Amino acid sequence: MTPPDPDLLSINTATLWESCNFRQAVDALRRQKIRGIAPWRDRVAAIGVKEAARIVRDNGLVVTGLCRAGFFPAPDRKGRRAAIDESLRAIDEAATLEAKCLVILAGGLPKESRDLGGAREMVRDGLGEILVHARSCGAPLAVEPLHPMYCADRGCVNTLRQALDLCDELDTSRSGAIGVAIDVYHVWWDPELKSQIERAGEKRLLAFHLCDWLVPTTDLLYDRGMMGDGVIDIPLIRSWLETVGYHGMQEVEIFSKNNWWKRAPDEVLGMCRVRHQTVC
Amino acid sequence: MTPPDPDLLSINTATLWESCNFRQAVDALRRQKIRGIAPWRDRVAAIGVKEAARIVRDNGLVVTGLCRAGFFPAPDRKGRRAAIDESLRAIDEAATLEAKCLVILAGGLPKESRDLGGAREMVRDGLGEILVHARSCGAPLAVEPLHPMYCADRGCVNTLRQALDLCDELDTSRSGAIGVAIDVYHVWWDPELKSQIERAGEKRLLAFHLCDWLVPTTDLLYDRGMMGDGVIDIPLIRSWLETVGYHGMQEVEIFSKNNWWKRAPDEVLGMCRVRHQTVC
Repeated sequence: MTPPDPDLLSINTATLWESCNFRQAVDALRRQKIRGIAPWRDRVAAIGVKEAARIVRDNGLVVTGLCRAGFFPAPDRKGRRAAIDESLRAIDEAATLEAKCLVILAGGLPKESRDLGGAREMVRDGLGEILVHARSCGAPLAVEPLHPMYCADRGCVNTLRQALDLCDELDTSRSGAIGVAIDVYHVWWDPELKSQIERAGEKRLLAFHLCDWLVPTTDLLYDRGMMGDGVIDIPLIRSWLETVGYHGMQEVEIFSKNNWWKRAPDEVLGMCRVRHQTVC
Repeated sequence: MTPPDPDLLSINTATLWESCNFRQAVDALRRQKIRGIAPWRDRVAAIGVKEAARIVRDNGLVVTGLCRAGFFPAPDRKGRRAAIDESLRAIDEAATLEAKCLVILAGGLPKESRDLGGAREMVRDGLGEILVHARSCGAPLAVEPLHPMYCADRGCVNTLRQALDLCDELDTSRSGAIGVAIDVYHVWWDPELKSQIERAGEKRLLAFHLCDWLVPTTDLLYDRGMMGDGVIDIPLIRSWLETVGYHGMQEVEIFSKNNWWKRAPDEVLGMCRVRHQTVC
């Protein structure tokens, strides 16, 4: 594999979770000549979505995704409605930011529930409720299959096959109004990864997220690795996406409470740039 | 669902990891009138497999599985050969113990490797090398798909579909000489669980393991829950197995360093008996 185009590097602001607000993250990206950003909604809200959109434009940044909406399962109708309304607002924000997609996390089991099948129906129904608005706003929904270890409490869509089954059902024409975000951390283990990437096709591959799986992994949530420090064959997975026609950006998203989050943003971003060119 | 037959309760000795050697585990089972046991090889080796087999017979116990063999991927031919030889010895031990199956863990990536596809080929080849001996000894191989969070370091067979693909390839007649062990902890999240249990069929369902997925889970390895304390719908999964014709035992296997492993064996087993009748 040849290295990826350095201009295709994007940074999910979760990677700079403890060091940067939105403005500081953009400043750090500018210093490091990184052209893509994927902000979290709370950081955008803190300065206002219009101001965030202006900053993005003024800095010539591409918003590779807005994180995040969904979380559809809830114990009652009111809770489910609230999740849908929140996701509709997130679609508006994604449109204002001209984001390439709105990242959708399914959500886990409602409190006290063991009804996984029921939760998954709520996800399908919730996506069905917001898809028309996403389509009319031009803000594609990127369903992100989450690692099965998050099934109970974060996301009960856990494989690419399952995510694409949802996309097929809700968007029979496969228009790309709903597609998938592929995060190597969540899917690297999947024996069907290659065949399901092929099934997705170029139009439905809306985002590609990078980090690494460390051995050992000491925390289920906050111990993701920098690319190259773990066991994921990132170039192989990238090649599968590119063979299908994915030529979007590669977005780095590292949750790392005890390591990368403790470092200065320029150190983190500098390492992201190096690793993007050497191990991705 | 009606509760399971109390006589079908079995205990994997890992549940009593820190409190019992083999003999003490058997004594505790006798006190609690539990009829099934699934011992680990190191505990069997400590008293000798023939003596263990005698104790099992004298106590009228059923050995629902011997834990464990496999771990096929290795960096070189010598390492792969050693894993195969070790698994052949484990088959002999399973036969001596008249175990219902030998539990097979695939093994993870070889050290320094990112070649997941290659590791999975080593697993297939390793299984192929030991299957004839297992068949001739009457010790079925139960491939246990492990939760994807163990893919890198313990087992790169991570879904029931993948395990059954292996079984299909190695035993085209589906004789049951190689089948699967279903541990709810590893597979509860799988959207294909029901359909793949149906695909397995009665002959290839060799073991059924119980515990629970806690929310939150604080450790990737040692924080499994007692049945009923987590989010897994165990009766539903049991109904899927029974519909296919599984009428074997239910084996409790709980890795719980900070909770159940700290308690006295009779307290743990007493709770297993209660929960087996009330939430399984």
